[in-house]
Amino acid sequence: MADAKLQIIPLGGLGEFGMNCLALRYKDDIIVIDAGLMFPETELLGVDIVVPDISYLVENREKVRAIILTHGHEDHIGGLPWILSELNVPVYGTEFTLAYVEGKLEEHALLDDTELIEITPGARFTLGAFTIEPIRVTHSLVDCVALAIETPVGIVVHTGDFKIDLSPPDGKAFDLHRFAEYGQRGVLCLLQDSTNVDRPGYTPSEWAVKPRLDEIFSRTKKKLFFSCFSSSIYRIRIAMELARVHGRKVAVVGRSMLESSEIAQDLGYIEIPPGLLIHPGQIADHAPEEVMVLISGTQGEPMSALSRAAVDNHKHARIAAGDTVILSSRVIPGNEKSIFRVIDHLCRRDAHVIYDDGASGLIHVSGHASQEEQRLMINLLRPKFFIPIHGDYRHLKKHAEVAQRLGVVDLALTIENGEVLEIDRNDARKTGKVTAGRVCIDSGSTADVVEDLVIRDRRHLSEDGIVLPILTINKLSGKVERQPEVVSRGFVGGEPELMEGARQVVTQTLDNSSDEEKADYGVIKEKIRIDLKRYIQKNTSRRPLIMPVILEI
Amino acid sequence: MADAKLQIIPLGGLGEFGMNCLALRYKDDIIVIDAGLMFPETELLGVDIVVPDISYLVENREKVRAIILTHGHEDHIGGLPWILSELNVPVYGTEFTLAYVEGKLEEHALLDDTELIEITPGARFTLGAFTIEPIRVTHSLVDCVALAIETPVGIVVHTGDFKIDLSPPDGKAFDLHRFAEYGQRGVLCLLQDSTNVDRPGYTPSEWAVKPRLDEIFSRTKKKLFFSCFSSSIYRIRIAMELARVHGRKVAVVGRSMLESSEIAQDLGYIEIPPGLLIHPGQIADHAPEEVMVLISGTQGEPMSALSRAAVDNHKHARIAAGDTVILSSRVIPGNEKSIFRVIDHLCRRDAHVIYDDGASGLIHVSGHASQEEQRLMINLLRPKFFIPIHGDYRHLKKHAEVAQRLGVVDLALTIENGEVLEIDRNDARKTGKVTAGRVCIDSGSTADVVEDLVIRDRRHLSEDGIVLPILTINKLSGKVERQPEVVSRGFVGGEPELMEGARQVVTQTLDNSSDEEKADYGVIKEKIRIDLKRYIQKNTSRRPLIMPVILEI
Repeated sequence: MADAKLQIIPLGGLGEFGMNCLALRYKDDIIVIDAGLMFPETELLGVDIVVPDISYLVENREKVRAIILTHGHEDHIGGLPWILSELNVPVYGTEFTLAYVEGKLEEHALLDDTELIEITPGARFTLGAFTIEPIRVTHSLVDCVALAIETPVGIVVHTGDFKIDLSPPDGKAFDLHRFAEYGQRGVLCLLQDSTNVDRPGYTPSEWAVKPRLDEIFSRTKKKLFFSCFSSSIYRIRIAMELARVHGRKVAVVGRSMLESSEIAQDLGYIEIPPGLLIHPGQIADHAPEEVMVLISGTQGEPMSALSRAAVDNHKHARIAAGDTVILSSRVIPGNEKSIFRVIDHLCRRDAHVIYDDGASGLIHVSGHASQEEQRLMINLLRPKFFIPIHGDYRHLKKHAEVAQRLGVVDLALTIENGEVLEIDRNDARKTGKVTAGRVCIDSGSTADVVEDLVIRDRRHLSEDGIVLPILTINKLSGKVERQPEVVSRGFVGGEPELMEGARQVVTQTLDNSSDEEKADYGVIKEKIRIDLKRYIQKNTSRRPLIMPVILEI
Repeated sequence: MADAKLQIIPLGGLGEFGMNCLALRYKDDIIVIDAGLMFPETELLGVDIVVPDISYLVENREKVRAIILTHGHEDHIGGLPWILSELNVPVYGTEFTLAYVEGKLEEHALLDDTELIEITPGARFTLGAFTIEPIRVTHSLVDCVALAIETPVGIVVHTGDFKIDLSPPDGKAFDLHRFAEYGQRGVLCLLQDSTNVDRPGYTPSEWAVKPRLDEIFSRTKKKLFFSCFSSSIYRIRIAMELARVHGRKVAVVGRSMLESSEIAQDLGYIEIPPGLLIHPGQIADHAPEEVMVLISGTQGEPMSALSRAAVDNHKHARIAAGDTVILSSRVIPGNEKSIFRVIDHLCRRDAHVIYDDGASGLIHVSGHASQEEQRLMINLLRPKFFIPIHGDYRHLKKHAEVAQRLGVVDLALTIENGEVLEIDRNDARKTGKVTAGRVCIDSGSTADVVEDLVIRDRRHLSEDGIVLPILTINKLSGKVERQPEVVSRGFVGGEPELMEGARQVVTQTLDNSSDEEKADYGVIKEKIRIDLKRYIQKNTSRRPLIMPVILEI
């Protein structure tokens, strides 16, 4: 017994943002914490979402006891439908988290076959070798927990996403005392949210946006459109309170906003006085100054209600000159172009657009702990080992440095997806790797796993045609699995000899590339494209469109 | 004569960032100010660059007297090769600007056929009805000018890109006096750079980065990699001076960095003491603390020297643990993913990476005027009419508001690409539209005009195949030019009746879309994809990949 070790195996979210998923294994017991998705990089065009590769869990399916959810954000629960369709295990989560999960599973016809078990802060439960206590934490979403996990080698604390909000709008405060008690008992290992490690100081409370929003409500003469993430329940609550105080009826527009506000209302997180809500069809029946439209689409998603309203293409949400539009959210890096496109459309309609541009006052706060909150929790828990979770590699690295410098932690170390960290009471070391990676999904169905593809085209496609080098890369080893194929269409130089030569060019490019380059599809595709372009031009004087396709297996 | 008006016709850069190009017309004389390119949005994958549609100039080719360049940045000169290949007119620019232009035209074999005419601040020249005086301004690049243009209806001032740098490293200061003199004489219309209208206060001088960079140089123990935009001549100059002072030899790595520093040296903007430069092949011969590598690739461009060095794939530039990498540049929105990928690779090699994250001190300054500088120039010139140039619509709108509020300007108004503004001594009004828009270029050739295409694929392509609805949209009218075509490949439901039905679905989607939606390809493609997906699923139960293609004509 004494020689067995605890294995910590991140399957997603370490070395990237999103699709958080981490396994803990002790002998024949595995528990999984969170099952998130990730929204794809622009390079994966056409892919709707990305989920973690769970081959490791599937291979060990008889050992997996359950999936435990820390909270209801997509990057923690969004992968569930795909994971459960391969691995039917019980799912544990708080009341609010499970309400989101239910809707998701119902959509995928998985609800009847899934065992959902509600957990509450302070109520311990046992799964194989693990006894788990959820501890209330605060975040931008409600009903979030950290997990204190008793294992045979010691206690592991997983923070989930958190900030230390001393005045959450629902009064359910961060449980400082429970963390302090665990610190007294002794914590072997802390897995802590790294997201905001770049920010010094403290993250403001969810309440902190109210004064500035109140000012904006006061000054607004015509219709007021309020947009935030649909899961920002606190924000929705504040907006509805302000609407009531300032004499505005509320119309909720956009599917995700409707669903989310209904769940929050059902579970008592938002109290809506009778008569406050109106149907979107009634907006036109009220004077502009008596309406607030709660609308989804802060990130400029092309089909969202706000994007459509911005180009006069929403039946009920119509933007008129002098209306005010508040985007109470951050500009997520990578979404600038679509967000600013929507803002430009709104400006052309002479709407006042208030967004988080650094000069609009405090209209949005982060849900993640800044450095001082991270330090506070580390001081409360005084863990022997410290592992940063959630973030790009530079965040994990910096977070480990921050923790190590405190002088409280014995050893702070970074691990990335697929790495196996073995710990016991004395020691923590990386001992191997398991399969980990990204699986791309077409969200219309549970079966449609799509592969990433970056494609170029040009006007004279019919003249010079198209050439597609297709590679099959083993995700785990990074090795090319078989001879690359090269197919063409409308390319007049596509004789067998030339295509055979093209195959050889691709093989050669791959041979001359490092594993790291092969793992970076942007780089490897560009290399293949350039080499093949040169080869084809030399041999045919033609310039077909070249579209490298990588299939992961 | 008295009834003729001056026409101001922006062809690029108003309502977008990049590809700046603006025509001034008086009767039969047209002059063109700047001929920039734009780096494509991620939606235009595979397209290397985007240039303005110059149909209007081509239609009026016998009237176009010249292209006048304000400075040498790509968004002001990068479109020249494509424009000159359609319209051979003289090009005016300062010595440094023309040095950049020469390299560009040589690459495209256009140098011999192009008349390049050097201009200097203060030296007036006449083109048809226009007499032009270049006025020295400061920016992040050297040898930049604004243009004071005497026209029969009054004086028009075009600022180019500028900030008011009171201590430029080359001592060539912003010409406050000349602007003041024009203000005394009376200015009819000011066209002013809007880029930084969101920033209050003043933009720091190019010198302002030196103290912080000096500290970093002092603290750096091993190799130092310094990366900045290759056109940031002042920055290169400061880095080289610091290298000299701190006893480091300088190796220049990356084609653009090499070219740019050679031009700057030739023209006396950088003085390099003998023995300072070493060949990149000699880096390994020196102790790490005696080397600075000046390297291109601040934006994470996949094939840039820095990106390659970050994955150990550069022959000479090798990153070792403990080396320091300074990215003395901003993170251009849209480039975050590639930049942070490079930074993560560098962090994995235990390099210290210092970039503009808000916590690294002043390692980069903007080249554009903030609000107070904009106001200062407006106060100096006191124009009757004010038109913001360079920026998204929201910037132009805000900039017009800023100018109007000063109480100095009679009328501040926004115009966008293709709109014709007619002005005379008394009045300014929009009177029509000309063709304007974006032309996508494959940079390998002057002839390869490519069209944008966003494509999705999936693993089971062979099973469900691919369907491509292809639209031909008239750029000017936004109208669909002929029946959409729908072609398919590997799609087993591709019978003629079904494809005819698909064509009708696409036509219907287009009929139900506003002109603004049609102009926003992201939106229109997504609508077509969704409608067609529904139609095909209903009729075949299959889920082929659907890739809308838009051809602009």
